[in-house]
Amino acid sequence: MKVVLLAGGVGGARFTRGLRDLGRAEDLGLDLTVVVNTGDDLWLDALRVCPDLDTVMYTLGGVIGEQGWGRADESSRVTAELHAYGLGWDWFTLGDLDLGTHLARTELLRSGLPLSAVTARLCERWRPGATLLPMSDDEVETWVEVEADGDVTTIHFEEWWVRHRAALPARRFVQRGVAGARPAPGVLEAVAEADLVLLPPSNPVVSIGTILGVPGIRDAVRGAAAPVVGVSPIIGGAPVRGMADACLTAIGVETAARTVAEHYGARSAGGMLDGWLVDDTDAADVHAIREAGIEARALPLLMSDQAATAAIARAALDLGRELAASRTRR
Amino acid sequence: MKVVLLAGGVGGARFTRGLRDLGRAEDLGLDLTVVVNTGDDLWLDALRVCPDLDTVMYTLGGVIGEQGWGRADESSRVTAELHAYGLGWDWFTLGDLDLGTHLARTELLRSGLPLSAVTARLCERWRPGATLLPMSDDEVETWVEVEADGDVTTIHFEEWWVRHRAALPARRFVQRGVAGARPAPGVLEAVAEADLVLLPPSNPVVSIGTILGVPGIRDAVRGAAAPVVGVSPIIGGAPVRGMADACLTAIGVETAARTVAEHYGARSAGGMLDGWLVDDTDAADVHAIREAGIEARALPLLMSDQAATAAIARAALDLGRELAASRTRR
Repeated sequence: MKVVLLAGGVGGARFTRGLRDLGRAEDLGLDLTVVVNTGDDLWLDALRVCPDLDTVMYTLGGVIGEQGWGRADESSRVTAELHAYGLGWDWFTLGDLDLGTHLARTELLRSGLPLSAVTARLCERWRPGATLLPMSDDEVETWVEVEADGDVTTIHFEEWWVRHRAALPARRFVQRGVAGARPAPGVLEAVAEADLVLLPPSNPVVSIGTILGVPGIRDAVRGAAAPVVGVSPIIGGAPVRGMADACLTAIGVETAARTVAEHYGARSAGGMLDGWLVDDTDAADVHAIREAGIEARALPLLMSDQAATAAIARAALDLGRELAASRTRR
Repeated sequence: MKVVLLAGGVGGARFTRGLRDLGRAEDLGLDLTVVVNTGDDLWLDALRVCPDLDTVMYTLGGVIGEQGWGRADESSRVTAELHAYGLGWDWFTLGDLDLGTHLARTELLRSGLPLSAVTARLCERWRPGATLLPMSDDEVETWVEVEADGDVTTIHFEEWWVRHRAALPARRFVQRGVAGARPAPGVLEAVAEADLVLLPPSNPVVSIGTILGVPGIRDAVRGAAAPVVGVSPIIGGAPVRGMADACLTAIGVETAARTVAEHYGARSAGGMLDGWLVDDTDAADVHAIREAGIEARALPLLMSDQAATAAIARAALDLGRELAASRTRR
């Protein structure tokens, strides 16, 4: 069964790992392709850093740090040196092991390889059990228009997210380079050939929203033969992790499982969702979501451990199969 | 007393440290400027690496590794990562702390600063007690024409030196970029204003020879008002350290204290040496060197410890003072 996931960082990575492990444990024959957001990428100290690609790669490779990003067993001797020179960004830590990845990536990029080929090369080491594709080989960088002390300025997404913990009110997000970006090789094909397209519990604005913003990808998902099933990143009116509420507010969407589903929209109404999983906390919204043309299910959505994550992955697969079967019947 | 040194890596760094420490201990009021060879510099994994500048900076900063290069208390976690990705050069180790310097340098270079300004910025941290100047802000890279398996190929100097331990016979050295290189800001001025110019026991071909190859520097040294005194890097027909013999052979110069002095030449005969210190082992050559127009002294030249190095530095200063006095008398 060919499954395509559109993923951001931590939430997308953990969900994908759970799905992969479920598939292995039950011999489901899953063939996973993860289209990863690269809108958070940045040049830092002459190095190309791809936060979401690395989070997905490290998580699937079994070397993710406990905090959900970076490497386990990490140190920061190099960053300490940069700081001793009065350089480096004090709000962005580059661990030594992680730095090995950034150096390797930068070297390969400078040798002329596109990011998709570089990603494939790096993944030879980590054997993620899934094909990782950047959404695009072209550089897209998310910048955030914020108000600070009465002035409007624009800062890199990572500065807003990591340094300011998304606490500066965002007026809007600007995806620099997105209009001219092309989907990376294999992205449109994977979506077209998929048996199921999944939107894991990633940020609907700056992760999945950015992927869908690459010209061609939104249309590919809308036109996919496979059902499209999403997992709500919002539980009880708050993001499970991260600061998706600040992003949703900036684009005028209420932070709720139902409103995010409506934001994606039902495929029958020109949107992209066939199915949507919400947490038990939001079970009361199931009816309204169905009314909007999206089949919904309520279940525990906290990915608190392997078993919980496997249960969510199973529910997404089951809903996808049901939707495909009902479509065939029609 | 203004002293200018033209230095390569380990030998130049240790001699300069000895001179600086002597000056401090005896309150000699030395004002040291070290013009450092940058012909060994290279781009490695997207980073600009300057082996000699770093060796001089770390040595004077008190953080040099025991082996004479790199940092003390070093680790290599980042390099291990690069190797795990099948990348990096297995014969060139970039330690983690050292890497901090390369990253800092590369970032500053990419921000638009010339190497001389970058060097000054890095030295703010290490307080070397001397002004470090790269020979040039322009990139000069030494390549070596070697014969291997009957074929003639050209490899970067560091590959020849570090990987092959200079064991592949060198046919010639090519200093790429040297013809168009300009002396870094301050180099010609320092030589012109010096009270003494010293050639420490650095490689006469690929360290001091490269510095002198930058258009303008050789003429500045030849025309300096100050005496020029060198310390032989050859003791008893062999280099004290490193593989200068392989370099001398390539340019057709016998590996001996006397022949290296003759290679530099007497200033009275259009060369650049006024004085030359040889080891006691080579005391028999003193007469011949004087006959060639270069004042020579024999003394122990092994920089085996601080006291030994201080004695050599003192002898160089003394010879310089004598030469200056005798010149004034003339």
